[in-house]
Amino acid sequence: MFISMEVITATSNARVKAWKKLAKKKERQKQGQYLLDGWHLVKEALLANQKIATILVVADFKHASELAAFDFKGEMIQISDNVAKALSETPSPQGIFALVEIPVAADVELADISGAWLFLDGVQDPGNIGTMVRTADAAGFSGVVFGEGSADLYQPKVVRSMQGSQFHLQLHVGNLSEWIAAFQAQKFPVFGTELNEAARNFREVGQHQDFALIMGNEGNGMRADHLAQTSLNLYIPLAGNAESLNVAVAAGVLMFQLKA
Amino acid sequence: MFISMEVITATSNARVKAWKKLAKKKERQKQGQYLLDGWHLVKEALLANQKIATILVVADFKHASELAAFDFKGEMIQISDNVAKALSETPSPQGIFALVEIPVAADVELADISGAWLFLDGVQDPGNIGTMVRTADAAGFSGVVFGEGSADLYQPKVVRSMQGSQFHLQLHVGNLSEWIAAFQAQKFPVFGTELNEAARNFREVGQHQDFALIMGNEGNGMRADHLAQTSLNLYIPLAGNAESLNVAVAAGVLMFQLKA
Repeated sequence: MFISMEVITATSNARVKAWKKLAKKKERQKQGQYLLDGWHLVKEALLANQKIATILVVADFKHASELAAFDFKGEMIQISDNVAKALSETPSPQGIFALVEIPVAADVELADISGAWLFLDGVQDPGNIGTMVRTADAAGFSGVVFGEGSADLYQPKVVRSMQGSQFHLQLHVGNLSEWIAAFQAQKFPVFGTELNEAARNFREVGQHQDFALIMGNEGNGMRADHLAQTSLNLYIPLAGNAESLNVAVAAGVLMFQLKA
Repeated sequence: MFISMEVITATSNARVKAWKKLAKKKERQKQGQYLLDGWHLVKEALLANQKIATILVVADFKHASELAAFDFKGEMIQISDNVAKALSETPSPQGIFALVEIPVAADVELADISGAWLFLDGVQDPGNIGTMVRTADAAGFSGVVFGEGSADLYQPKVVRSMQGSQFHLQLHVGNLSEWIAAFQAQKFPVFGTELNEAARNFREVGQHQDFALIMGNEGNGMRADHLAQTSLNLYIPLAGNAESLNVAVAAGVLMFQLKA
């Protein structure tokens, strides 16, 4: 299968340099694509029929026959191990990458929104964000909204920790006030979260089909105006002397508790 | 307060070099101590009356008066910003460190063990481990047992993500088979976990005071001999197309569900 492929062996190659730049948001926006690193993610993208412009693969790629079975029609380029190392943020890259078109988010008809949704209110850590998207997928959520001040959806560390879940649910960048208002217009509960024992215990609000859960910034929590806008704000009672939970763990506990 | 303090300004100083080596397990064992980085952790150690040999602090430390109020009697050394940068694994260190004696784990009388315990069966990622200890603390667990093949308790990244929870609960390194047997001898349930729908749904086993929950390796799950030894193995039903949960998130969902 690799017979007629273009081969790139030099890390100084202009295209390699352009791909490396995709670690930066500005370049992702300019080039309109982002980089997937590793067979699990590339396979997920192939299975999900994502728009893959180019696949980069080393000569002795371990899962070459599995890859060939996908009969990928786009551009395929053989890269050297050095190029793989230059492109990867992991110490031992698997030797496969895909350049995936950043999907243009479908226009959302907020008036018709339904299902369980996670809203990110200024969540900063890319690992936390990716883990929360992955957990939302596993908990059967319909989508995640990246509110103002949350890290970028296609940042390499976010992509790595999403583990392909971006292909399974809806992801939007949006104005959280508008999203909260849209849920409330349909009488769907919007649960804020705060580290405040005056808020409602998360075990006391039942399970729901259509609702939104909002998780706030790691250090400062949710924005005050969003807290004021919600239907109800929840807290997780903490035993012991711990001051807080990791935001991705708290989101997991809440999502699995609240989702019917 | 800083008048008579020793001052170290050179990163080439022999003691600075020795402290830097504490990032390695072998050196931690040799020196019998580990390094805390940042005011939150140092303050937690002071509050918990840990054996702190030395506190290192920059001249313009932001919380100097709060620190002074602790009336710390051990060695205090003023360090330069360069030394702080050399010692820290974070890009913007807060300029305070403590050298804390690694506690000798108290002999555990396994026959008398009680409470809720988390067992780590080959969990590898330091961030996951630290987050799991922090979550166990918040969920009111009594302790965490680091089984064979789990990352070291005092590795810098574990310490950073524990957020001081090591001072609030019992931490042991141990042989998981012996711990499982000890719980079973007292008729306390031991819940294994596996990604297997033939296992028991985690929502169907009630809440407990005295029990153990075992979380396995990120890639391979629990050891087969441990799975065979447990009372019951649980799984978290996954909706959507997600293949798995992050192990620290799964542990959080389970701990908050199972703990009475």
